[in-house]
Amino acid sequence: MTLDHLSQNKAFGGDQFVLSHQSEATGTEMTFSVYVPPHADGAKLPVLWYLSGLTCTHANVTEKGEYRQACAEHGVIFVAPDTSPRGDDVPDASDEYDFGKGAGFYVDATREPWSKHYRMRSYIEDELPAIIEANFPADMALQGITGHSMGGHGALTMGLRNPGRFRSVSAFAPIVGPSKVPWGEKALSRYLGEDREAWAEYDAVALIENGARVNHLLVDQGTADNFLEEQLKTGLLSMACAKAGIPAEIRMQEGYDHSYYFISTFMAEHVAWHAARLG
Amino acid sequence: MTLDHLSQNKAFGGDQFVLSHQSEATGTEMTFSVYVPPHADGAKLPVLWYLSGLTCTHANVTEKGEYRQACAEHGVIFVAPDTSPRGDDVPDASDEYDFGKGAGFYVDATREPWSKHYRMRSYIEDELPAIIEANFPADMALQGITGHSMGGHGALTMGLRNPGRFRSVSAFAPIVGPSKVPWGEKALSRYLGEDREAWAEYDAVALIENGARVNHLLVDQGTADNFLEEQLKTGLLSMACAKAGIPAEIRMQEGYDHSYYFISTFMAEHVAWHAARLG
Repeated sequence: MTLDHLSQNKAFGGDQFVLSHQSEATGTEMTFSVYVPPHADGAKLPVLWYLSGLTCTHANVTEKGEYRQACAEHGVIFVAPDTSPRGDDVPDASDEYDFGKGAGFYVDATREPWSKHYRMRSYIEDELPAIIEANFPADMALQGITGHSMGGHGALTMGLRNPGRFRSVSAFAPIVGPSKVPWGEKALSRYLGEDREAWAEYDAVALIENGARVNHLLVDQGTADNFLEEQLKTGLLSMACAKAGIPAEIRMQEGYDHSYYFISTFMAEHVAWHAARLG
Repeated sequence: MTLDHLSQNKAFGGDQFVLSHQSEATGTEMTFSVYVPPHADGAKLPVLWYLSGLTCTHANVTEKGEYRQACAEHGVIFVAPDTSPRGDDVPDASDEYDFGKGAGFYVDATREPWSKHYRMRSYIEDELPAIIEANFPADMALQGITGHSMGGHGALTMGLRNPGRFRSVSAFAPIVGPSKVPWGEKALSRYLGEDREAWAEYDAVALIENGARVNHLLVDQGTADNFLEEQLKTGLLSMACAKAGIPAEIRMQEGYDHSYYFISTFMAEHVAWHAARLG
């Protein structure tokens, strides 16, 4: 497997990489970014995964996320994958921002024409970790995961399905119950088909109701977020956690919206929170 | 004068504004950003100006500059103007990234066709400060200025020409002697004409040689910056400051390039450095 170095920039004493490779999972060229903080020779560092939201690529958080200072301080590697397969051969819904390219929803699609390339679950759960382990000074026994909006949904569901891999799970303004909201109903019905039983493993609230657990959970949600009421429905997660006895810290942040201005404000706290649980 | 609020986002407890207005200086609509940190009712806060580099607008530093956390911590207002007039009526050199739109060089042009709109010196020295004072909780007795590359040139020259207004001056990878480098020779000859005597007030090294002084000066320059040798020539500033007895802190930062990865790494230090001198 060849990893192409698209860019490397020194930042906060470490290195911000942007890389691409031919993915077996998606059958496409995939781009992702990795920040490696300053570290002692031979050291192995914890890894924090960040899954991005609708319309995003690796670039949004890499440019606007303001994570590098905290990652440098706490010695954490930060990995930001893309949100879908890309390329002219990949089917798309070109006039829809919430489906197709930029909207992979972190599933392995089972319906044509999506099932050939839209395999973001396998890509992030199986393929990319091996690449990180082989190419960076990563301690794969110490992994946390976070994400924003659709990527918050990805972080919660991957965290709930893999509690042995992810010691800590957090999210910024996540979609918590995609089965019950328009973004999720549209995406899951087309990627997975109309049988809602198949959606349950891609729905954080449903996973919790079905017995899945995480060790540690932190969520920040802005009260001025335009998507809160119709698409995000943070309250469903609070109720599910309370009922299941999951010690979740779900913080409603007064006046914050859905943008990277919100994410960057709380990013350093999330990095420190993960570092404390991975350290 | 009407100020249009293009956006307002809560960040780090304060507000990030993007605004536009009809400028008398440039005769065009001008867009700029202002971050107002959390503050007590009725408080007046110091102001830090940030001038951007070639090809940039207010947006680059607003999205990638990572200044808000430090501004919130130190209680500093951060103002980021555009780098040139904009609009269909404004003459441009469309295939040149280093002249015309996005490349105003912080001068008042005296040559046709540039002299009508390219009046960024008057805009930033005279017009915009009055707008900031009238619309934000700004203590205009406490102003500092910084900038990047062409904007570092702008910060140094405005600081040197107005030591009473700017108590502190810093820069990231500034063009220090535009009269002696290709970017500057091209821009100044076309905006100001071939008479090099007219360039001296827009050249930091020449201003110092002619007796201008600043109270405090901090410069960060990456050693891996591709423009260092041909365009930036930091050494000319070091020599001029040493000869003039200006207590300048000029730091060569090992391995850093010309990008916002470099700027964001040292931004918090610059904000704190200005705050200490304005506080």
